[in-house]
Amino acid sequence: MSHNSFGHLFRVTTWGESHGPALGCVVDGCPPGLPLTAADIQVWLDRRKPGQSRFVTQRREPDEVEILSGVFEDERTGGQRTTGTPISLMIRNVDQRSKDYNDIRDKFRPGHADFTYDAKYGIRDYRGGGRSSARETAARVAAGGVARKVLDAAVPGGVTVRGALVQMGPHKIDRTRWDWAEVDRNPFFCPDAEAAARFETYLDGIRKAGSSVGAVLEIVAENVPPGWGAPIYGKLDQDIAAALMSINAVKGVEIGAGFGAAELTGEENADEIYLRQDGTPEFRSNQSGGILGGISSGQPIVARFAVKPTSSILTPRKTIDKSGQATEILTKGRHDPCVGIRGVPVGEAMVAIVLADHFLRHRGQTGR
Amino acid sequence: MSHNSFGHLFRVTTWGESHGPALGCVVDGCPPGLPLTAADIQVWLDRRKPGQSRFVTQRREPDEVEILSGVFEDERTGGQRTTGTPISLMIRNVDQRSKDYNDIRDKFRPGHADFTYDAKYGIRDYRGGGRSSARETAARVAAGGVARKVLDAAVPGGVTVRGALVQMGPHKIDRTRWDWAEVDRNPFFCPDAEAAARFETYLDGIRKAGSSVGAVLEIVAENVPPGWGAPIYGKLDQDIAAALMSINAVKGVEIGAGFGAAELTGEENADEIYLRQDGTPEFRSNQSGGILGGISSGQPIVARFAVKPTSSILTPRKTIDKSGQATEILTKGRHDPCVGIRGVPVGEAMVAIVLADHFLRHRGQTGR
Amino acid sequence: MSHNSFGHLFRVTTWGESHGPALGCVVDGCPPGLPLTAADIQVWLDRRKPGQSRFVTQRREPDEVEILSGVFEDERTGGQRTTGTPISLMIRNVDQRSKDYNDIRDKFRPGHADFTYDAKYGIRDYRGGGRSSARETAARVAAGGVARKVLDAAVPGGVTVRGALVQMGPHKIDRTRWDWAEVDRNPFFCPDAEAAARFETYLDGIRKAGSSVGAVLEIVAENVPPGWGAPIYGKLDQDIAAALMSINAVKGVEIGAGFGAAELTGEENADEIYLRQDGTPEFRSNQSGGILGGISSGQPIVARFAVKPTSSILTPRKTIDKSGQATEILTKGRHDPCVGIRGVPVGEAMVAIVLADHFLRHRGQTGR
Amino acid sequence: MSHNSFGHLFRVTTWGESHGPALGCVVDGCPPGLPLTAADIQVWLDRRKPGQSRFVTQRREPDEVEILSGVFEDERTGGQRTTGTPISLMIRNVDQRSKDYNDIRDKFRPGHADFTYDAKYGIRDYRGGGRSSARETAARVAAGGVARKVLDAAVPGGVTVRGALVQMGPHKIDRTRWDWAEVDRNPFFCPDAEAAARFETYLDGIRKAGSSVGAVLEIVAENVPPGWGAPIYGKLDQDIAAALMSINAVKGVEIGAGFGAAELTGEENADEIYLRQDGTPEFRSNQSGGILGGISSGQPIVARFAVKPTSSILTPRKTIDKSGQATEILTKGRHDPCVGIRGVPVGEAMVAIVLADHFLRHRGQTGR
Repeated sequence: MSHNSFGHLFRVTTWGESHGPALGCVVDGCPPGLPLTAADIQVWLDRRKPGQSRFVTQRREPDEVEILSGVFEDERTGGQRTTGTPISLMIRNVDQRSKDYNDIRDKFRPGHADFTYDAKYGIRDYRGGGRSSARETAARVAAGGVARKVLDAAVPGGVTVRGALVQMGPHKIDRTRWDWAEVDRNPFFCPDAEAAARFETYLDGIRKAGSSVGAVLEIVAENVPPGWGAPIYGKLDQDIAAALMSINAVKGVEIGAGFGAAELTGEENADEIYLRQDGTPEFRSNQSGGILGGISSGQPIVARFAVKPTSSILTPRKTIDKSGQATEILTKGRHDPCVGIRGVPVGEAMVAIVLADHFLRHRGQTGR
Repeated sequence: MSHNSFGHLFRVTTWGESHGPALGCVVDGCPPGLPLTAADIQVWLDRRKPGQSRFVTQRREPDEVEILSGVFEDERTGGQRTTGTPISLMIRNVDQRSKDYNDIRDKFRPGHADFTYDAKYGIRDYRGGGRSSARETAARVAAGGVARKVLDAAVPGGVTVRGALVQMGPHKIDRTRWDWAEVDRNPFFCPDAEAAARFETYLDGIRKAGSSVGAVLEIVAENVPPGWGAPIYGKLDQDIAAALMSINAVKGVEIGAGFGAAELTGEENADEIYLRQDGTPEFRSNQSGGILGGISSGQPIVARFAVKPTSSILTPRKTIDKSGQATEILTKGRHDPCVGIRGVPVGEAMVAIVLADHFLRHRGQTGR
Repeated sequence: MSHNSFGHLFRVTTWGESHGPALGCVVDGCPPGLPLTAADIQVWLDRRKPGQSRFVTQRREPDEVEILSGVFEDERTGGQRTTGTPISLMIRNVDQRSKDYNDIRDKFRPGHADFTYDAKYGIRDYRGGGRSSARETAARVAAGGVARKVLDAAVPGGVTVRGALVQMGPHKIDRTRWDWAEVDRNPFFCPDAEAAARFETYLDGIRKAGSSVGAVLEIVAENVPPGWGAPIYGKLDQDIAAALMSINAVKGVEIGAGFGAAELTGEENADEIYLRQDGTPEFRSNQSGGILGGISSGQPIVARFAVKPTSSILTPRKTIDKSGQATEILTKGRHDPCVGIRGVPVGEAMVAIVLADHFLRHRGQTGR
Repeated sequence: MSHNSFGHLFRVTTWGESHGPALGCVVDGCPPGLPLTAADIQVWLDRRKPGQSRFVTQRREPDEVEILSGVFEDERTGGQRTTGTPISLMIRNVDQRSKDYNDIRDKFRPGHADFTYDAKYGIRDYRGGGRSSARETAARVAAGGVARKVLDAAVPGGVTVRGALVQMGPHKIDRTRWDWAEVDRNPFFCPDAEAAARFETYLDGIRKAGSSVGAVLEIVAENVPPGWGAPIYGKLDQDIAAALMSINAVKGVEIGAGFGAAELTGEENADEIYLRQDGTPEFRSNQSGGILGGISSGQPIVARFAVKPTSSILTPRKTIDKSGQATEILTKGRHDPCVGIRGVPVGEAMVAIVLADHFLRHRGQTGR
C-alpha cells in the first residue's frame, strides 16, 4: 500500500505536519556499505531551504537533518557507512507561527486541500496546511540525498540528476541559452541568465501584489544505463510520473517530447539509432526522453512538470467554512509567490528515488 | 512490487504477448455480490477492438473474453455474481501473422521498445512487439469492465467514466462544441462533429502515406464523492498519472488546468466555493480537475494524456540490429495510423481501475 | 496487498475454483533467459496429482499445465527460455462432479471454510469447496516449478528443495532411518521404509472408516548461501512460516528446533561454529534450521508444518445451514483420508517460491 | 516490499538499533478520529520495559514514547485524535553500555544473527546486536498500542488481545488453572499461580548459572467477528504466523490445535456448530483456533509461539571471528535469562497489528 510510502526495493516513508514538532522519513532497502553522513544529506536540504531569497517563504527553518539509524562506523573501509538497515531521518520544525492560521482554521482555502482533507478525515491539522504543506517535501529531499548515494555507486561515473525552472507564469526560457552552471547563480534555478532577469522583475510584481504564479520545471538524469524499468506497470516513466505528480501543487508531467508528441508524425518522432566510432549505439534525437517501452534507453532521461500557483494569496476569495456557511478568505502568513522554485530540488529528489529503486529492482531481476 | 500489477485493494495483474496463444488478467480484490457476466465486459472490449474502421489496425481479433474464475450463481439475488475471489479473464489471440515480423526480428525499430527490451532481458518475443504491444491493453479494458461494476455500486447513481479524443496531430477540437453523444458517432471518439470531419481527412492522408500521428485524449469521471485519495504517495492524481503513463506510447499526463496552470495566477487558479440553494458546496470553476491535495473534491475528475505516433511506419529509418550493425528499417504489417484513437477506451479503463481501488481503500480506512 | 498473491520480486498470483473451468497462476518477476517448458513444470505437478494411490482422492485430474505467456525461443542459447515477462500457467479442471455437493450446498461442514466464506462474502461456490479447495495448490506447485528454475541458476550446483512426511496421526518416523531415496518409493513421501509400512496399515483403517487424519511434513532446502533474508519484517523464516501456513489445513509451522527450542538451554541451543580444513565455517549442530536473525546461515534450511485432518468425513456431525437451522452433515464425494500426503509437493513448492523471491531481493539490495 | 514494514492498510515500519540514539516506527493508515495520546501507548510499553524484575535484562530504559505526527486536537469531539496521516513514534535509547560489547565486536555469537548480518551486509552495528536486538520490539509494542485503538472502535465492545507464558523450559502450566487475572501478578505473565512459583525457582537457577532457557507463549484475541481474513495468501492465520515468526528468537507458531492436529482424526478435529438459545451459531470446541480457511469464525483466535533461549550466555562457546579464525566467546553484559517473558507484550502487539490491518481490509473489500 502507498498511503505515505514510495518505492519498492528502495522505499521511502515520510511523516510529519507543517507545525508539528518534527518531520522526517524512513528510507528502507538502501544497500549496505555506502558512505553517508548528515552533511551528505544537508547539502541538498540547503538548496530547498526556505528564506534564502525574497522570492520564497520567509519562514526561517534551518532544516537540519539528524540520522537516527542505519549507519555505522566501518573499520574495513573507514568512515560512516550505511548498514543495509532502515535509515531514519528527522528534521525539527523550529519556526512555526501557528497563530497566523487562526483566521483560516474553519475556512477552506479555494484551490487548497483544506476542503478535501476535511471531507476525507473529518479532522485536520489546519496549521500551515498540516500534512498537505510543502514542508513535507523536506523529507523527500533528505531521502533523495540517500538515493543519490545509491546512484553514485550504481554505475561507473555515477548517475547525475539535475533540475531547472524552465517557465514562470507566461515567461519561458530560451533553450539555446541553457547553461547548467547558471542554475546555481540565480534564486530561480533558471539555466538561462536572461530569462532569470525577466523572472526577477516579473515575480517582484507578483509578490508585491500578494499574488502567486505557476511554473514549469525540468529534471534531467544522465548516465542511466539501458535496461532500467519494467513492463507493464513498473515502467520507469510511469514511476517518474507518479513521483512528480505526488509533489504538492503539481498538475502535469511529461517525458521527452511530452504533449508535443501529439503533433509529431511517426517520422519526426522516431529517434534514429546509429553507431558511434567506438561501435556503441547512439540516438539522433531524444523525443523519447530516454525511455522506450518503460525501460531506459541509455539516453538522458528528461521529465518536465507543471506547478500551479500557491493558493495562499492576499486577494479575498469566496469560500465556505466548516459549518457550511458562505464566507470569504484571504491568507496572511508567509508564503511562496512561486512555489515552483523550490520544486526544483524536490523534483530532482523524486527522480533520484525512482532511479535508485529501479536500479535495485533491475539488479534483482537480471543480476546486472 | 509492480512489474505487471496495478492497484492495491483492487489489483489487476496482466499477462500475455501480442502473438502468444492468449492474453489476460487476474482481477483480485473485487467485492463480492456484484453482477458480472462476460457480456458486461465484452461491451467495453468491443469499443477497443481492432479492425472496426480503416483508421485502426486491420488485424482481425474478435477479442472474446472468458471468465475463468471468481463468479458464481447467487440464489439469493439471482444471476451470476462476483464471489470476492480472484477473477481470471482470458482472451485468445486468433489473427497473429507472425511472419510479417521476420524482417524486424533482428532490428530495433526507432521509437519502439525493441532496443530497450533487448538491453534489459537479452531475449524478447519480437512478433508484433511481444509484451510491449498495444494488444496488452485489451486486458486493461477487460479489467476496467470489472472496475466499472465496482463503481456502479460505490455511490448512488454510480460513478461514470467517459473519454474522448480532443486533439489529433495539430488539429484540436472546439470545446464549446463538446457533445458526449457525438463520441460514439465517429470512428475517432471525437466529441466535436466538425473536428471529427477534419480528423478524417487528415488521417486518411497520414494513413496513405504509411505514416502515423499523435493525439491528446481526455478522460472525465463524474459523481466521484469528496474524500477518495490519500496523502502523500497514494494521491488520486498520482495514481491516475501512473495509470495513464503506463499505457503504451503515452508521453504526458495532466489534471485539470494541467500545464496551463503554470501560466495562471493564484487568483485565476483558485476554484471559489459557494453554496447551492440546497446548502451543498459547489465550485465556480474546475482548474483543479476535481482533485485537491491528492483527494477528490466532488467535482468532475478531468485528466488528459498525450499519445505519441506509432513507431511502425513505412518510411525507412536508420537503426542498428542485434549484432550491432548499422541498418535501415521500415515496418510492414498492420498498424494504427493514430494509435491514440483506441487509447480512449484504454484510458477510461485505467481511470476506472484507479477509482475502484481508491473507493475500496477509502472505505477501508474511514468506513465511509 | 496480498489477497491472492505471494512474494515480491518473484510474485505468484493464483486464481480458480475447484469446480470452475480452470485454475492457474501468473508468475511475475521471473528472471529472463531460464530454460522453461511445460514438461519442466509437469514433472512437479505429477507428484501432487490426485488419484495415484488409494490413499488420496480418487478424482481423476490429469493436471496438464499450459504455458500461455512469458517464454520464447532463444536463438542465442537454443530452446525455450523465459523472457522476463509474466508467465501465465493454466490447468483445466476436467473431472468435476458438482452434483456430489448438492447435499451440502446449504450446510456448513464443521472444520471447513464453508461457514467463514459465507460470513465474509455472503456468496460462495460450494462445489468442492470452491476457492478454499486443495485444488488451488496445483497452481502453487506449477509456480514452484518456475521457482526451482530460478534456484537452479542462483548458485553453482543449484538450491535443492525436498520434502517428506514425518508423522501421520500418532505415528512418527525414526529419523535415524531417514533415506531421501525412500521418499519416492512409497505413496506417503515417507523417508523411513518401516514407518511407511505402518502408515499404510494405519491409513487403510482410517480410509475404510470414512475418517481422516492429520500429519507433520518436513521441507529441507540445501545449498542456500549465507545472506538471504532481511530484517525485520522480511525475515526468511517469517516468509516460510507465511508460505506454509497459507496452505490449506495447515495449523502449525516450525523452523529448526522449533517448539522443541522452548525446552533447550542457551548452551544446548547454540550451534557452535568451527572451521573446516578448507577454512570455511561450519556449524556443529543446526538447532537454528539454517536461519539466524531472519537470514540464511548456509546450513540446510529445515521447516516443518502440521496438517489437520480433512473435514470431509462420513461420520455425521452437528452443524447449521445457511438459513440458520440446526442440522447434521456427512460428506460423501471423493476425499483425501490424509490430505497431508499431497502436502509434500505443495510445501516444497512454497519454500522454493520463498527462496526464489529472497534470492532476487538479496541480489537487488546487495548486488551479490 | 517488506524489509522493515508489516501490514497493508494498517502498515507499521520500524527503524533503529539497540545502541543508536533512538528507535521508533511509523504507523501508516490508522483511521482518523481515534483518541490517542502518548499515555495510551506508554501503558503497553511499560509492560515490556526492561529492568522490572531480576528475571529480565537489567538495562535501565524508561522507554518513553513521543508522538511526532498524526494526531491533533479535535474541537468537535474534544481531546487529541488521530488525523488519518502517518503516526511517527520515537523512543530514545538512554542506557547503552556499548563498551560491554568490545569483546564481541569481531566474534560471531553462536545462535545469534552476528554471523548472518555480516554475511549479508559486510558491515554491522555489533553493539547490543544492533538492528537484530530485541530492543526493536519496543517499536512493535508502541505500534500495537495504536492498533488496539483501531480494534477498540472496530466492533461494539472492542476486540481484546491478551497473552500469557504457558511453558518455560520443560515446565508447562496446568490449563485448568488458567486465570487471566494472575498474569499481571507475577513477573512471568503466567496465568497459573502454581506454575509461576515453579518458574521462579527454575529461572533463578538458570540465571545464576549464566545460562538461558526457552519458552512457549499464547495469545488470545476475543470478540473478533466472523469474516476477517482473505484467501489465499492474505489468510489471517498466515499473517499471524508471519507476525509472530518475525519476532526475535521465535522458532515456531501454531494456531488452535496446532501441531497437535496431526494426531487428531477428522471426527475429533471438527468443531461442531449448534445454535444458542438466541439463534446465533456457536461451536462445541475450538480446534480451529478461531480461523477456518484463513477467515475468522467468531471464536476466540488462539495462537502459540515458541521462543528459543537467548544466545547471550556466560558459558564459553566455540566460534570464529570476522577474520576467519577459530576462537571462543562468552557474552557478558545484561541479558534476559528467558527472553520469552518479555515476548508476551510483543506477541500481543503483533496480533493486534494483524487484526487492525485485516479489519480495515475487510471493511474495504466488503463494506462491513
